[in-house]
Amino acid sequence: MTTPGREHRLPPRPRRRGAALEDAILDAVIEILDESGYGELTFEAVAQRAGAGKASIYRRWPTRVDLARAAAQRLLGEEAAPPDTGSLRGDLRAWIRLTADLLTGPLGEALRGASAEALTPTHGGGRLSSLSSGWFGPNIDVILDRARQRGESVVQPSALVRSTPATLLRFHFLTHGAPIDDEIIDGIVDEVALPLFTSPRA
Amino acid sequence: MTTPGREHRLPPRPRRRGAALEDAILDAVIEILDESGYGELTFEAVAQRAGAGKASIYRRWPTRVDLARAAAQRLLGEEAAPPDTGSLRGDLRAWIRLTADLLTGPLGEALRGASAEALTPTHGGGRLSSLSSGWFGPNIDVILDRARQRGESVVQPSALVRSTPATLLRFHFLTHGAPIDDEIIDGIVDEVALPLFTSPRA
Repeated sequence: MTTPGREHRLPPRPRRRGAALEDAILDAVIEILDESGYGELTFEAVAQRAGAGKASIYRRWPTRVDLARAAAQRLLGEEAAPPDTGSLRGDLRAWIRLTADLLTGPLGEALRGASAEALTPTHGGGRLSSLSSGWFGPNIDVILDRARQRGESVVQPSALVRSTPATLLRFHFLTHGAPIDDEIIDGIVDEVALPLFTSPRA
Repeated sequence: MTTPGREHRLPPRPRRRGAALEDAILDAVIEILDESGYGELTFEAVAQRAGAGKASIYRRWPTRVDLARAAAQRLLGEEAAPPDTGSLRGDLRAWIRLTADLLTGPLGEALRGASAEALTPTHGGGRLSSLSSGWFGPNIDVILDRARQRGESVVQPSALVRSTPATLLRFHFLTHGAPIDDEIIDGIVDEVALPLFTSPRA
C-alpha cells in the first residue's frame, strides 16, 4: 500500500535516497512490464508500486519511453559478458540466443511498447529509440576480440556491420514476437554475421 | 463536398464501381498521409475526401493499418523496375536510393504510422506488419539476375539475406527519419549488400 504524501514529510537526503528510490522505481517498472505489459505502465501505477511520488519519477524519466529505456538498461546491465564457447560461431550463437531469450521477458515488452510509443509523433517524436545501445556493440567487440586472440580471421567491422545482427534480431522480434526459434538465430549467425565478420579474402 | 447517403441511392454495379471506388479511397488515403500525416488518417476523413460511405471502406480495409498497407502497395505498384546501371553495385545503389526517396513521401508516413499502430496490442496485435512485401524481394531478384547475365559472381541468397538491405533501410528510417543521406545508402550497399550477395570464395 502507498502512503500519499509520504515523500514530502521526509527530510531531504538526495544522494543516498536517490539511488534506493531509483532502484525501487525501476523494479516497479520491470514488474509492471512483466505482469501486465506496457499498456499498464503509467506513472500512477509505477508511483503506487514503488511507494514513490509521481514528481520524483517524472524528474528522472519524463516519459514512459524514458522509463522503459531505463528499465531495459538495468535488465541488460545485470547480464554477464558473452559466454566463451571456444569459437566465433559458438560465441555468436550463444550470445544472440541469450539476447533473444531476454526478449521473451519484460525487456521484450519494454522494446515493443516503447517502439510503438516512440513512433507516435505526439509522444516520442515519431522515431524509434534505442533501448539497448551500449549492449550489443560492446559485446560484439568482446566476441570479436576473443576470436582474434584465438587466431580466427575476423574483420574490424564498421558500426553498421557491427549492429546488423542486432537489427535483424530486433526486427524479427517486432514482426514475429517471442519466443525466437533457434533456426532464426542460426540464420542470423551463419548467413549474415559470420560472412560479414570473417575475412575470407585475407 | 460529400453527399451523405449517396452510396445507397445508386443502383448496385459492384464490379466496375468497386475498382473506381477503391481508387478514390486509396487516393484519399495517400493525400491525407501526405498532407496531414497518419494521425489524421481516420475512416471519417477518408470517407469524406473520397466521397464514399464509411461502411464501403471498412468492408475492404477493416483497420487503419490495412488502409496504410493498401496505400503503400499502390504507391510501390506505380514504380518501374529497378534502373539498369550496368553493374550490380550501381543497380543496388540506384534502387535503394529510389526506395529511400519514396520514404520521404506518403509511403514513409504510412510506414511510420502503421508501425506505431501495429505495435500497439489493442490495435494491431502487437506486431510490426510488412507494408512492402512483394516489393523488395522480387526487385532484388531482378537486380541479381541481371548481374548474373553480365557475368558478375553473385550468390543465390536466402530469404533472410535477400531482405537484409531492406531491413537495414527500414530500421534506419524508423530510427532517424527521412531524408536518408547517400552515405547511409552506400554503407548498406558496400558494407552489407555486396559482401552478402557476391561470392568471393567461388
